[in-house]
Amino acid sequence: MPTVSVTRRTFFNAAHRLHNPSKSDAWNKKVYGRCNSPNWHGHNYVLEVTIRGEPDPDTGFIMDLDDLHTVITERIINKVDHLNLNLDVDFLRGVIPSTENLVIAFWRELELALPTGLLCKVRLHERERNIAEYTGD
Amino acid sequence: MPTVSVTRRTFFNAAHRLHNPSKSDAWNKKVYGRCNSPNWHGHNYVLEVTIRGEPDPDTGFIMDLDDLHTVITERIINKVDHLNLNLDVDFLRGVIPSTENLVIAFWRELELALPTGLLCKVRLHERERNIAEYTGD
Amino acid sequence: MPTVSVTRRTFFNAAHRLHNPSKSDAWNKKVYGRCNSPNWHGHNYVLEVTIRGEPDPDTGFIMDLDDLHTVITERIINKVDHLNLNLDVDFLRGVIPSTENLVIAFWRELELALPTGLLCKVRLHERERNIAEYTGD
Amino acid sequence: MPTVSVTRRTFFNAAHRLHNPSKSDAWNKKVYGRCNSPNWHGHNYVLEVTIRGEPDPDTGFIMDLDDLHTVITERIINKVDHLNLNLDVDFLRGVIPSTENLVIAFWRELELALPTGLLCKVRLHERERNIAEYTGD
Amino acid sequence: MPTVSVTRRTFFNAAHRLHNPSKSDAWNKKVYGRCNSPNWHGHNYVLEVTIRGEPDPDTGFIMDLDDLHTVITERIINKVDHLNLNLDVDFLRGVIPSTENLVIAFWRELELALPTGLLCKVRLHERERNIAEYTGD
Amino acid sequence: MPTVSVTRRTFFNAAHRLHNPSKSDAWNKKVYGRCNSPNWHGHNYVLEVTIRGEPDPDTGFIMDLDDLHTVITERIINKVDHLNLNLDVDFLRGVIPSTENLVIAFWRELELALPTGLLCKVRLHERERNIAEYTGD
Repeated sequence: MPTVSVTRRTFFNAAHRLHNPSKSDAWNKKVYGRCNSPNWHGHNYVLEVTIRGEPDPDTGFIMDLDDLHTVITERIINKVDHLNLNLDVDFLRGVIPSTENLVIAFWRELELALPTGLLCKVRLHERERNIAEYTGD
Repeated sequence: MPTVSVTRRTFFNAAHRLHNPSKSDAWNKKVYGRCNSPNWHGHNYVLEVTIRGEPDPDTGFIMDLDDLHTVITERIINKVDHLNLNLDVDFLRGVIPSTENLVIAFWRELELALPTGLLCKVRLHERERNIAEYTGD
Repeated sequence: MPTVSVTRRTFFNAAHRLHNPSKSDAWNKKVYGRCNSPNWHGHNYVLEVTIRGEPDPDTGFIMDLDDLHTVITERIINKVDHLNLNLDVDFLRGVIPSTENLVIAFWRELELALPTGLLCKVRLHERERNIAEYTGD
Repeated sequence: MPTVSVTRRTFFNAAHRLHNPSKSDAWNKKVYGRCNSPNWHGHNYVLEVTIRGEPDPDTGFIMDLDDLHTVITERIINKVDHLNLNLDVDFLRGVIPSTENLVIAFWRELELALPTGLLCKVRLHERERNIAEYTGD
Repeated sequence: MPTVSVTRRTFFNAAHRLHNPSKSDAWNKKVYGRCNSPNWHGHNYVLEVTIRGEPDPDTGFIMDLDDLHTVITERIINKVDHLNLNLDVDFLRGVIPSTENLVIAFWRELELALPTGLLCKVRLHERERNIAEYTGD
Repeated sequence: MPTVSVTRRTFFNAAHRLHNPSKSDAWNKKVYGRCNSPNWHGHNYVLEVTIRGEPDPDTGFIMDLDDLHTVITERIINKVDHLNLNLDVDFLRGVIPSTENLVIAFWRELELALPTGLLCKVRLHERERNIAEYTGD
């Protein structure tokens, strides 16, 4: 059977701040600039989750996209949407919420909830100009 | 001479929270739902400022868009980008930062810095799905 | 108080066919071309509903956008999404589903469910290149 | 009958240069900056033409959008696409091709070819950030 | 010579219905939900076809994109645009038109008409949120 | 450490003309069609540069995106924006500015200015419908 990938795009809004608490304020200001702003700032994130596998001959689906949507919603969206990525998210405790670190953390959450080997790519648009992508390597 | 309108689109990121401090927590939770989340959330805002007038026969411009861009940057973007709309912005003190209230406040800031009668419309996309617009009425 | 407009954007998919049953097949083929294709075709429609009014000083809202979203969902989306605009929609019975006719019909449905005078514009994107708009005139 | 507006979006690519030949090089450089670059630069323009009228009860159309598309293609696109707006376009002779001047010139060309009173708005996106609009005033 | 990939994006509209005729109505309703709606629904599909090879030193092209466009139009667009994917398309007979199955079927049609080894990826956006991709594996 | 990729999207405008000076005018007209138009035409290009590596545990960044932005701006944007790709760009001398050739040339410029092994992909959208991509192969 041919192997196909399918992507589901979802959206969430969150506040964050780039700040490494083990470093000085001067270091943080220098490294992160405006992204270190103390009273938070935020984004409309676009999250794309890609799975890859053989379509089931009965359904034509790799996986029901409504089921994939439920996994993404329960594992990620409900825990981050309209919240603060530095303060409010269990699975991001101790993680500096750069786009790079977020795609790795999201991959790990999603991998736990999906059939083994199905997850193929997690892609996150922080802004129209900045995009990070992780494929599990 | 014909009258034309010109729009400049700019982008900023900010944190905010919908909260009326003169009301109870229960009222705020009920009215604003997730938008009342205490640790802030945020957006990539898209701001469109429209001016309207007769093109100058020498330049073909109503106004140099670089000058308009400077006004928008100095009056709005520098004061809100990567900041907190509830805490960090002088001209939003006491304003609940709903998209409606933001377009009115932005109009007032821009009007002060533009030649009389030039400003025509302020439009703000909070998310892809929510847009507010003010024309000075 | 200043008067502001707010737009809510929603999405639906539907099948349709441009066909006037009171005319001959030849007339229909000539007028509508491929849009008259007998086995239906369809679109991802983008629907933008704009309301206009004074923001409530307590909430900063003209109307809670979640309430507006509920009206749009109940009056329009639930009746057209993943359905056939020629066959499945009560309020479109006898209406040729051109984009022009759809915005008029949607306006009439929405007007019944919204506070008097609030509805300001109904805009429908049939495809990226074709857009119709009705303001109640 | 209700009055509706319909917009057709089209695309073209062109080279141009902002330059007023009756002024000095220094004036041009100061007013237009990089847009005065002598070897031309160019854009993917997005052109939106809006007509407004009552839908014909037989067709559901204000005007067949394929006919509108033909007018736009013959009157504008064929004369500007993959060409130079300063050198190659008859109806732009002597016009500084600012976005403002282009919408006025396009309106005049389209008005000649459309039924009286139908043309409602010409909107041109020069880049994602700069948009001009003319409604015939 | 370096190997480059080039993508051509095209658009079509079609009606479809997710339905497996070898299964019961209850099974179909449960598996496909609203997508099983009997009177069809439809989409504005976005189709991206990617080829990969070495640019010809004389032309700078892997393949003339107008020729690629002709292949895509003749092999796919003309057979599906403004039509019904379940009823009207020869090469989809017996295929449940899920996005997964469509990209496989489109690949097979395109591969027959392109020079051997040139086709690299077929990507189909069913809606803004659902995307399938096939690379021939 | 996990390996992640990050993409920075930038924009520029330029004029160009597809023309091989070692071939006849007839050959050029036949191969390139309207893209061979003698007085130039132009585009709003979208450039996406992707780097790939392990996020630094101190910063959460593969590389500071502001530094990447500086490299892209100095090496590419400042040399091509509002200019003529056939006449004004040192590193494109003798290159036919097809999208394919541009991504190869941009890769070579960027590779010189970035830490070894970091550059992963250069993607260029000439128009909404045409996209080229080079990964260094």
